Parts: sequence; structure tokens; C-alpha cells
Amino acid sequence: MPHLSNKAVQIPASAIRKLTPFANAAKREGVKVYHLNIGAPDIKSPRSAVDALRNFHMEYLPYSDSAGTLELRRALVEKYYRKIGVQISTDEILVNTAGSEAVDFAVQTCCDAGDEVIVIEPYYTNYFSFAFQNGIIVKPVHTDIRDGFKVPSIEAFEAVCTPRTRAVLLCNPGNPTGVVYSREDMLRIGEFCRRHDLFLISDEVYREFCYCDEPHFSALNIPGLEQNVIMVDSVSKRYNLCGARIGCTVSHNAEVIAAITKLAQARLCPPVLGQVVTLGALDAPQSYFDSTREEYIRRRDFTLAALNRMEGVFSPVPGGAFYTIAELPVDSSEDFARWMLTDFRLDSQTVMVTPAASFYCTPGEGLKQIRIAYVLEVPELEKAMQVLEAGLKAYRER
Amino acid sequence: MPHLSNKAVQIPASAIRKLTPFANAAKREGVKVYHLNIGAPDIKSPRSAVDALRNFHMEYLPYSDSAGTLELRRALVEKYYRKIGVQISTDEILVNTAGSEAVDFAVQTCCDAGDEVIVIEPYYTNYFSFAFQNGIIVKPVHTDIRDGFKVPSIEAFEAVCTPRTRAVLLCNPGNPTGVVYSREDMLRIGEFCRRHDLFLISDEVYREFCYCDEPHFSALNIPGLEQNVIMVDSVSKRYNLCGARIGCTVSHNAEVIAAITKLAQARLCPPVLGQVVTLGALDAPQSYFDSTREEYIRRRDFTLAALNRMEGVFSPVPGGAFYTIAELPVDSSEDFARWMLTDFRLDSQTVMVTPAASFYCTPGEGLKQIRIAYVLEVPELEKAMQVLEAGLKAYRER
Repeated sequence: MPHLSNKAVQIPASAIRKLTPFANAAKREGVKVYHLNIGAPDIKSPRSAVDALRNFHMEYLPYSDSAGTLELRRALVEKYYRKIGVQISTDEILVNTAGSEAVDFAVQTCCDAGDEVIVIEPYYTNYFSFAFQNGIIVKPVHTDIRDGFKVPSIEAFEAVCTPRTRAVLLCNPGNPTGVVYSREDMLRIGEFCRRHDLFLISDEVYREFCYCDEPHFSALNIPGLEQNVIMVDSVSKRYNLCGARIGCTVSHNAEVIAAITKLAQARLCPPVLGQVVTLGALDAPQSYFDSTREEYIRRRDFTLAALNRMEGVFSPVPGGAFYTIAELPVDSSEDFARWMLTDFRLDSQTVMVTPAASFYCTPGEGLKQIRIAYVLEVPELEKAMQVLEAGLKAYRER
Repeated sequence: MPHLSNKAVQIPASAIRKLTPFANAAKREGVKVYHLNIGAPDIKSPRSAVDALRNFHMEYLPYSDSAGTLELRRALVEKYYRKIGVQISTDEILVNTAGSEAVDFAVQTCCDAGDEVIVIEPYYTNYFSFAFQNGIIVKPVHTDIRDGFKVPSIEAFEAVCTPRTRAVLLCNPGNPTGVVYSREDMLRIGEFCRRHDLFLISDEVYREFCYCDEPHFSALNIPGLEQNVIMVDSVSKRYNLCGARIGCTVSHNAEVIAAITKLAQARLCPPVLGQVVTLGALDAPQSYFDSTREEYIRRRDFTLAALNRMEGVFSPVPGGAFYTIAELPVDSSEDFARWMLTDFRLDSQTVMVTPAASFYCTPGEGLKQIRIAYVLEVPELEKAMQVLEAGLKAYRER
């Protein structure tokens, strides 16, 4: 029997999804599982997205341009990015098969195998996956839950920077922390990238989920850093079109777009039906974003108050996205998360959360932490928090 | 300004798509361009696929399972693979974001950077792209147009096999040659793989386009090779759903499926709307395949007769797919293909073809050859062949 590649053997299974079999088993027993483990929200997509799909006339489905249809790129430039203060042309944007592909292509464009990318820990776990698949080494800059995951000082970046460092990869607002980086934070990180000639890959897929008064500051607007910035975006969260698999890459650096175009040609084109609904979604009125934001502020406020009321639980209040990291009074949050699915029921209900260790690559970090996605309506979150609190109590007394 | 990775600089642009700017310029002048350059057919998708999309009720689009919805995997197993004599369970199939991703994940599962994969030359050019992106080396076994691209002897495979060889990657029926490998061919190649403990990655996306009397023989049915075979498939050509971006990987080797599942988790899920139309397409009646096949036999017969009537042109008659490689009486088919787009018009018409050199990695091979995709209706093909013949004459007399 032939041997698998070392890569195939060593790549870790998704920490976010690996507890799924236990959740499915619980459901088969008739247990209601509250999914706080994955960023799969219940907000409706804009009416215009639904209409675009209904009005799409299909006889067959040909390929689109590898970079996405010109119509969609133009609409993104004119209807969305212009509105949020990002001035780009249709030559500076490429449509991806979701933000996942955008991150994958961006790291490949900056780094060869053996090169290094700096990430701010805890980070979106698939950053590690895409780096690993390409033989790229992730160098973490640590942030601490007790500091509210505050952006680290530039000294912390300097400390992990080596001659093999090619890029900084960050997520703003952050998954899994919900931290929002201010204009000043971004300027400091930008200055570090300029000094060391690094790319800055800025994942801004949660841009519309900022709950502070300050507007979101895109890395594309860092003065003088035009040639260094690769902005990664997605419609998955913005319009709740996770299944459409449409994202994009934006850069003022023409060489970057040319390189990513070559990578994109090999996979032929992004999903055409996803492009159709996205084109429609871009006609969403401002009220769509406003009401979504208000709803998430309610959910955040409820969830964080509930978490921090539980004995021994601490979670800093996130300024954006729809995640929070909570420290639990347990030794192993992974064991607790599995136990909730296999052993604990309150009135035939349980809760699924994501153990946070996989968001860190510093060994031993995050072992007591979980990530919670507050993507349910408040009445559902209320029940989920009751179940979580009762579960924690029972787990400690077991 | 930061430097791009060597990979990003060195990866070749798509040979199939790099002449597109010249075609677009011709179209802007009002020239009609016959696209024989890309496998983008005009056949309607099954009615059931169109209906599935129309009946899909969307409020928002959540992720599906990373492996594709269970409903779709079950339908593929029961409605399609069982019918064609491939016996698998839903645990042995994973839905991909098109055949492209299936090939990418398959080579990564077999090979680490520096490992080698044997391909039969001329091969689908993106096999090279996916290998290159992963640092994998492509070792070609040469086949010759004058032999009708007949499957090489096993000695030719032995000659390129080294201790770093991990897999054979083939396409049956073949893109770009249209060659169909017989049961005996496949058994011989299978025996070679078994002897050297190699994976056999079998790309069977053109399975329904076999014009011989013998039924298509899937690598999955090679006796005793169950643990070696990774079959790659796609609905792009089968139902003319190229833009849906849905393919799949099938293997009896549980380790292979487990490894590919990990790769699939990092990109979250395949396109959900593509899964919806595919589920519908699987209800296509046998008459859909029969009439499509008859249509392509007409197109093939017409195209090959026309080509071989042209002075100095030779193209062996393909047994499957919808491509053929033709040798032209020119020194550089790339120069000719570009010249057709930039300089030649017959009654304001021209033809776009793909230079074949990029389907070879042996230097100097294929320089006089083009690939033609006979994906238009016969009356259109008739005009395209007239234009091609006139273009060839004018090019030689220029």
C-alpha cells in the first residue's frame, strides 16, 4: 500500500470541526445542540441577493473569467469599496473562491516554502493550515486575554522577525478575539512592514461588524504602504453568504495581482452562481448593515454579560466580529467541550463550543479557553448560556 | 518594495487563457471570434438541474459539510456511480470545489515537495500548475501524435520512475488528446503502480464522452488496486456545469479520504449553489447522455475530416472527450495562434486555438501543434474550419 505524503499525515484536522461527530451523535439521540462553535449566523441575506438568484436565467453554466466577471469586479469597486472609502480600479481586484482561497493565494504570493509569516496569536486557525500546506512557517506574536488581546508592541514583532520573514498576516476585526485594530495600531504595524520590506496581508472579512464609534480602518489606506498591502475580503459574513464561496483580493501592487491571477487561472474560475448572488447583494441598502450591526451589538452585550457572570469565567468584551474568547475554570477546554457533547444534557439540550488551543501555536497557550460565536438570536443565546453555565458547574462537580 | 515569492514569479500563466487579451481586442473591433481554445461547450444542462436551482429556497447561504452535503454524496453514489458500475459508499467520496481542487488535493496527499508524479505527455496543462504550486516534480512519459498518442509501453514508465516517484496522474479520456485508455491499458498501468507502490490518480471527468463501442473502464475497477487509486471527477463537462465548480474525489483508501478531508476543512466547504444544481443534474435521464454523445460524435467527425483535409495538417481521430491535437504546417503554433487573433480576418471572423507546447514538458515538443476543442454546433464548426484553413494559407504566404 502506498504511503501518504508527510504533509497529508501531519496536517491537523480542523479544531473547529473535529468535534462535529460528537455533536451529530448527540443530535441522533434527540438532543438539541446550540452551535456556538462556528461562525455560521442566522441573519437573512439582503433581499437583492435572493432576487438576483431568482432572476438568473440558466441554460447551462459556463466558466467566468479567472478573476471573476468584470461586472462583479466593477460593482465591488463602485458600489462597495468606494462607499467604505477604499479607492481602487477593477485591475486591482480579483474575485476568489471565498476568503479561504484569498488567504491561500496571498501567502503563496509572498512566501516560498521555508519562509515565515508573522501572525498575531490567537489567530484564525486556518491561517496555520494554509501556511502549512505551502511549507510556510507561522511565527506568532502573542497577545493575552487578560490585556483584552491588545495589539502587541512593535518590539514583540521585532522579536520574531528574521531574514526569512516575508509578511505579516492579521485579521481586523479579529477572529477569534473580536479585537478591532485602530488606525494607530495599523499605522504602527504598517511602519514595521515598511521598515522590513514585508507584505501586510490584511484579512478584513468582518469589517461591517465593528461595534465601536471609530470607523473601520482598512490597511489599504495606510499612507505610503500601497505596494505592501494585500487585502483579503469575503462576502460570507457581510451578507451571510458563507455557502456562496465568494471572496476577493485587493492590492495596489500590480505584480501581486498578476501573480495571483496566475494562481487563479489554474483553478479556472470562482463559482458562477456565487458571483450572481454577490452581484445582487451589492445592492443592499445601508439599513441592512445598520440593522445587522445593532442585532450583533445586542447579542454581544447579552453573551458577554452572561459569560462574565458565570463563576470563574472571564471574557474581554470584543469590539467587532461575532466571536469572543472566554477563559473557563477548567484544566482542558477540549475535554470540557467534548464532555458537553457526549455527557451533559440540560432538558435534552447541550452546547457546542470550540476549544481555543488551536488558535495558538505557542505550546500550552489557550488550554483553558474556548471560542464562542454569538451567532444566534438573544432568546436562543439565553438558553445556550444557561446550558453552558449548568454544564460548567456539573463538569467541575463530576 | 517587498519581493514576491519565487513561486509566484515562476509559475507560468495559463497557456489556454493567455491569448485572451488578443481575442478581446479583436472582439472590440467587431470581429467574430470562434472559440476552439477552451472546453466551454454550448450543450444545455439537464432540465432537472435548472429546475433544482429554480426551486431552491434561499434566505441565506450557510456552509455545508466540508465533504459536501450528505444528500449530494448519497445521490452521487446511488444515482450516478452505481449506474456506471462503480460501487462505493458515501464515506469513500468527498465533494470538491471542481475537479481542479480534486487534482490539487490528490497530488498533495500523495507527494511532498521534491517528490515526483508521472504524467502522460501531452497532459492537461494545469496538472503541471498544481504540481508546481506544491513543489512537486512532473515526470513525463511521452506519447506521439503520429502514433495517435497511443499509451506508452510500461518500459517508458519504468524509465522515468525513481525512488521519489509517488504517483501516476492520468486523464481518461484524455485532455488534450481525446485518447481513451482501454481496460488492458489501465490494467498494465495499474500493475506498474502496484509493483512500485504508487498511487494512481485517475482523472475521469470526460467519462461520458467516449465514442468507441467499449464502455469506459474506471481505474476504481482495477482488481487489487483498491488502496492505490484516487479517482478525480467533475460535473463541469458531464452536465455542462463548468461554472458550478463542483467535482469530487473517490477512493477506497480510507487514509486518503481522511487526509483530503483535512485539506477540505481548511477551505470550509464546496460551493453550496453548485451542490444544489448538481443534485438536480443527477436526475438527468440516460437520453441526456445519449443525445450529448451523438452530438459530439457529429462534431468530432466533422472537425477531424475538415482538419485532415487541410494541406499539411494532421490530427489523429480521438476516441473521447471533445479535444483534438492537430499538427500544423507552421514553425510556431503559438505565433500562428496569436497572428490569427491580431492579423487575420475572413469576413470579419477569426478563430482562437490553443498552442499545444504547454501540454508538454519535454522541451521542443508540440511547437507545431494546437489543441482544438470542438465544442460548437456543426454549422459554427463549419465556418470556424473555413476561417482556420484560410488563415493557415494566408499565414504561410504572408
